[in-house]
Amino acid sequence: MTQLTDSTTRPATPADDAAAASAADIAPATGEVNLPLAIDVAALGEQLLGQWAYARKHARELMTRPEFQRDPDLGKDAHRERVLGQLHKLVEAGSVHRAFPKSVGGDEDNGGNIASFEELVLGDPSMQIKAGVQWGLFAAAIQHLGTDEHHAKWLPDALDMTTPGAFAMTETGHGSDVAAAGTTATYDEATDEWVIHTPFRAAWKDYLGNAALHAKAAVVFAQLITRGVNHGVHAIYVPIRDENGDFLPGIGGEDDGLKGGLNGIDNGRLHFTNVRVPRTNLLNRYGSVDENGVYSSPIESPGRRFFTMLGTLVQGRISLDGACTVASKLALTIAIRYGTERRQFAGGEGEEVVLMDYQRHQRRLLPRLAQTYAMSFAHEVFLEKFDAVFSGRDDTDESRQDLETLAAALKPLSTWAALDIIQEAREACGGQGFLAENRLVQMRADLDVYATFEGDNNVLLQLVAKRLLTDYSKKFAKADAGALAGYVADQVGDRAFNKSGLRRLAQNVADFGSTARSVGYVRDTESQRQLLTDRVETMVAELAGRLRGASKMGKREAAELFNRHQNELIEAARAHGELLQWEAFTEALDHVEHAGTKTVLTWLRDLFGFTLIEKNLAWYLMHGRLSAHRAQAITDYIDGRLLPRLRPHARSLTDAFLLEDAHIRAEIATGVEAQRQEEAAAHYAELRSRGLTPIDEKDLLAGKKSRR
Amino acid sequence: MTQLTDSTTRPATPADDAAAASAADIAPATGEVNLPLAIDVAALGEQLLGQWAYARKHARELMTRPEFQRDPDLGKDAHRERVLGQLHKLVEAGSVHRAFPKSVGGDEDNGGNIASFEELVLGDPSMQIKAGVQWGLFAAAIQHLGTDEHHAKWLPDALDMTTPGAFAMTETGHGSDVAAAGTTATYDEATDEWVIHTPFRAAWKDYLGNAALHAKAAVVFAQLITRGVNHGVHAIYVPIRDENGDFLPGIGGEDDGLKGGLNGIDNGRLHFTNVRVPRTNLLNRYGSVDENGVYSSPIESPGRRFFTMLGTLVQGRISLDGACTVASKLALTIAIRYGTERRQFAGGEGEEVVLMDYQRHQRRLLPRLAQTYAMSFAHEVFLEKFDAVFSGRDDTDESRQDLETLAAALKPLSTWAALDIIQEAREACGGQGFLAENRLVQMRADLDVYATFEGDNNVLLQLVAKRLLTDYSKKFAKADAGALAGYVADQVGDRAFNKSGLRRLAQNVADFGSTARSVGYVRDTESQRQLLTDRVETMVAELAGRLRGASKMGKREAAELFNRHQNELIEAARAHGELLQWEAFTEALDHVEHAGTKTVLTWLRDLFGFTLIEKNLAWYLMHGRLSAHRAQAITDYIDGRLLPRLRPHARSLTDAFLLEDAHIRAEIATGVEAQRQEEAAAHYAELRSRGLTPIDEKDLLAGKKSRR
Repeated sequence: MTQLTDSTTRPATPADDAAAASAADIAPATGEVNLPLAIDVAALGEQLLGQWAYARKHARELMTRPEFQRDPDLGKDAHRERVLGQLHKLVEAGSVHRAFPKSVGGDEDNGGNIASFEELVLGDPSMQIKAGVQWGLFAAAIQHLGTDEHHAKWLPDALDMTTPGAFAMTETGHGSDVAAAGTTATYDEATDEWVIHTPFRAAWKDYLGNAALHAKAAVVFAQLITRGVNHGVHAIYVPIRDENGDFLPGIGGEDDGLKGGLNGIDNGRLHFTNVRVPRTNLLNRYGSVDENGVYSSPIESPGRRFFTMLGTLVQGRISLDGACTVASKLALTIAIRYGTERRQFAGGEGEEVVLMDYQRHQRRLLPRLAQTYAMSFAHEVFLEKFDAVFSGRDDTDESRQDLETLAAALKPLSTWAALDIIQEAREACGGQGFLAENRLVQMRADLDVYATFEGDNNVLLQLVAKRLLTDYSKKFAKADAGALAGYVADQVGDRAFNKSGLRRLAQNVADFGSTARSVGYVRDTESQRQLLTDRVETMVAELAGRLRGASKMGKREAAELFNRHQNELIEAARAHGELLQWEAFTEALDHVEHAGTKTVLTWLRDLFGFTLIEKNLAWYLMHGRLSAHRAQAITDYIDGRLLPRLRPHARSLTDAFLLEDAHIRAEIATGVEAQRQEEAAAHYAELRSRGLTPIDEKDLLAGKKSRR
Repeated sequence: MTQLTDSTTRPATPADDAAAASAADIAPATGEVNLPLAIDVAALGEQLLGQWAYARKHARELMTRPEFQRDPDLGKDAHRERVLGQLHKLVEAGSVHRAFPKSVGGDEDNGGNIASFEELVLGDPSMQIKAGVQWGLFAAAIQHLGTDEHHAKWLPDALDMTTPGAFAMTETGHGSDVAAAGTTATYDEATDEWVIHTPFRAAWKDYLGNAALHAKAAVVFAQLITRGVNHGVHAIYVPIRDENGDFLPGIGGEDDGLKGGLNGIDNGRLHFTNVRVPRTNLLNRYGSVDENGVYSSPIESPGRRFFTMLGTLVQGRISLDGACTVASKLALTIAIRYGTERRQFAGGEGEEVVLMDYQRHQRRLLPRLAQTYAMSFAHEVFLEKFDAVFSGRDDTDESRQDLETLAAALKPLSTWAALDIIQEAREACGGQGFLAENRLVQMRADLDVYATFEGDNNVLLQLVAKRLLTDYSKKFAKADAGALAGYVADQVGDRAFNKSGLRRLAQNVADFGSTARSVGYVRDTESQRQLLTDRVETMVAELAGRLRGASKMGKREAAELFNRHQNELIEAARAHGELLQWEAFTEALDHVEHAGTKTVLTWLRDLFGFTLIEKNLAWYLMHGRLSAHRAQAITDYIDGRLLPRLRPHARSLTDAFLLEDAHIRAEIATGVEAQRQEEAAAHYAELRSRGLTPIDEKDLLAGKKSRR
């Protein structure tokens, strides 16, 4: 074990778990009294709930009611009916109007709306996503892409579920590349109508929630053609079913059928055969056509216009980031509650060992707990940014672009993380984790698609990388050579400009930062920040260098050059997103007042930072940022210090998620395992007290041998 | 891009996929004619089917029949009934007797039995695992733990499903630690009977396939107590339900209900209240009790006896390794077929790019394809070892222990790999991947539990690590100091013996192996072997050093010392398993005769080896086995050489799995995507030919600007 000097003054001692008493053993012998260290669960819980705690609490209160909870035994059809009913109940509960204009009875509370929506995942992810389709996509498209007239005409019925609606953007042939959609909306001057048409099978709208059964209308995204010109993809309000639920003339569709999860949603396909709607059904905030078929738009560039329209829908990505954070909190609460009760295999003194006392179990769950805290704090920053933009407080092109980049960076990280966290939680609970009654498997199945819908994760990360490169090239254009030299010259110089071969940093391994300090130097906040930030900046600088020639190349060569670095682009974007999460976690520490909480949370933040560095250790070694000596110290510090210190607080750190039993609803998280063990122990104790314990054959043999 | 000299003479050129033509661009300019390179799919396919091809083909033929295929829309209860019916059909098809004694109509063909069983996963994993419960656990326990008398009495009915049975080993309170089971079987001399009893809730048998509904009997594992002595866990045949399907007196149970997958199996719980069965119901091959209650066993040591009994059930782990390999083949076939047809986003020349031509897509799928090949070849070696032991050809204590270690090493790797591979395949297919009609989500859900049943993966890897440490200490005891110095002295000397701190290898970075060679040296087989082998040996040596004091410590201290290195133990075991897979893949190359196949398969093996090294690059850097220069070259070689070379062969390499359409049964793997694109392209071509293509607003703007 590497010897590290501790900078924190309070050594860990067991908090609420007698089984963790051995944690005190690892406290450094500082001579200080080992004061019991506790965290202020209630205060930390409030901090985690964040600025929109009132909205989260309201939604959580609803989710304690059985009517909003998933019934795992329902088949697809019954599940769909139940979820439809739940949407009506959400309307009754006043849970759906928050984001909408006051003119239609809303609160114009964007942050609160998303916060509330995220918590619905505790009831049933199907209900959450169907609600997201209805209010976050269908109604929100009317709100953000339409005008006051459209709001007055369609929003009230959309809000109260009189008109269940579909958001008809994705096609079978085009998902990530919406701009290439095949559906057309052609203006017919003779009748002052749009003709909506699906010209081939690949242009069928697909995967649309509400489309298979319940939608009465759809916001249809189509190539807008008038007077022989295609103005690109625009959104049009199209009624699709009559009052009996039958398709209107020219409209047809299919059920997407059973899915990997979210089977409470009736996803389906739609196609249009010369379907006519009035010209005024075009949601024309960003593009209008007059009765002569003349197109006009407040945004001249078709490209910028398209991205502005899509940008109004960023809340989908934001809410997935938040929902995945909530689901991760739930999964870890279940696994850590069980892990602090369940015992398996006798330890050194014969008593069976609690799972959470195994190093491996700590390694599996505690870094994921740290990650969940990072996701939670980062999400709050994200939501604040969103609320500032959408409330108009800070609504500029730049802040909208920043928000979209943030969404593209955080949504992939948290949706992947949730799958990883729920899966590890499920495996950590063994066979129990596989039972539906313990909820982990169904939660994972439902959240699976979060990684590829609302923007495929790999595609989103490339958007982030492109933004990072753009920012870099701006900086590069402005900065003087000296300022840049500090972090990019080495990389770009050796590597990309002349392509003469690899840099030879290994021969020159030097610790990055202040070399005078001891091996423990990476433990402090500034060192972690420096290592994480430097990695992002260096990766971007290296990429910029490698892609430098692209602007002077032909299109094909440039595309090939980009493609040869696609994997690196994505890795750089990921590193950027992780840095954002780390920064948010670090900033949150400043707002903690309780000393014990601050100490424990700082360890948890260190665990998050160290785990990120450890994951990319090869990079730090190859780039001469860490010596092998210090690199090894990082793993040793995680295993030898951070995990044992955090172990006694694992339960409290999940208690701070403030999830009630009615939210958790997992049999193994109810204390039943501890009861079973007490019953077993009492049985064996009684046998012993009555002298009825059989002799173990092993002891008998040992006895025989010793008598020989 | 690092410049590497190629040792292979045949550069890659596109095989069957025009879209991959650009792959030829990366071929080194050797001046050679770029001959088209193809693989012999049929021959490679036969090689992959292996020694028991006849059994695999028979099972695969059955799996083309709809009656053996999963109906994804069935709910739990209907699915259970269907699967029960499928088991009867497997009996009729003569697919279940292979492993059993000729005395009961079997073939005594152990390898063929497992090979055949593994392919059932193509029909429905629920059918596979329920068949595994019936014949691989229940009947196999009678076979391996019972005597000829037991065989004659119970096997025929077990084999033909007259007696569906449960394998009652796991309890709610004890899964991985079977030896600590709570159920007791106490001999009553007065009546010459065993009294089976469940003393508390934690001792209920749990998760048992067949137990909730169909089982008529169970092999119950219980602490065997006679004359006041507990002889440890033994297996007893216990009838549990009468002809009406009602529990016999003293027996009760519960349904485990819905699970994350495998819902065609009726898993359940059983408990026993002083249930009496005749003394002769003890499956007494390894432990008998006479009518006076006197216990005897051919194996004196209770510990060795217990592990011998459990060892007879190793085939469960083996078959999971094989089943996961088959499922991975299926998943990659689906994703790669779709990935070579699906297009998204326009490339450099306007035409949309095939997904498989994106570097990231290659990075996601091709290393997993390499891994699947490694798993397949390693499984064949594994199965040969198993067959040799169970046929009696090589049945020694040592070979049985080797087999168990192999099982404990490979089962975790392949069960985790299958989940990872299926998930990546599902995400690589986007929204299509989430639809049940494309099978990936249901396959993943069903295979989820493979990671924690038949031995929890983390527990199994610790068994492997213990074996590695034992072997190491034997070697260490025998070897002279000089022989060991070569690979362990550095580690053990600096690190563990004196605990004075970390080694300072970083100051002394030197390439491992022959330093005289160029940067490309790791490409050859021996270098890969050296790097992979050295890592395992060094990790084990380091661990041995760190754990050295344990034997002299108190039990508690020793347990704590082990626990502090638990994560490293598991990592060492994983490295060992990966080396075994690499070795098997490498050995398989020797049996390839076709030159093209050999070249492509060697690239694929290199990709497997390089990916393993890349994953552990930090280790190689910190231990001075690779310089930063060479470490970077590994990633560059994967991205710049191996992926583009393998890309044109991706489809052929999955064709060699010889899965028929009736096995694949995924809509997106039928060519439908290519048809849809052809239809769309024809539509746009027709518009162009008729002059009906609308002008793009962007082009219009560009035109206006240029006219200004």
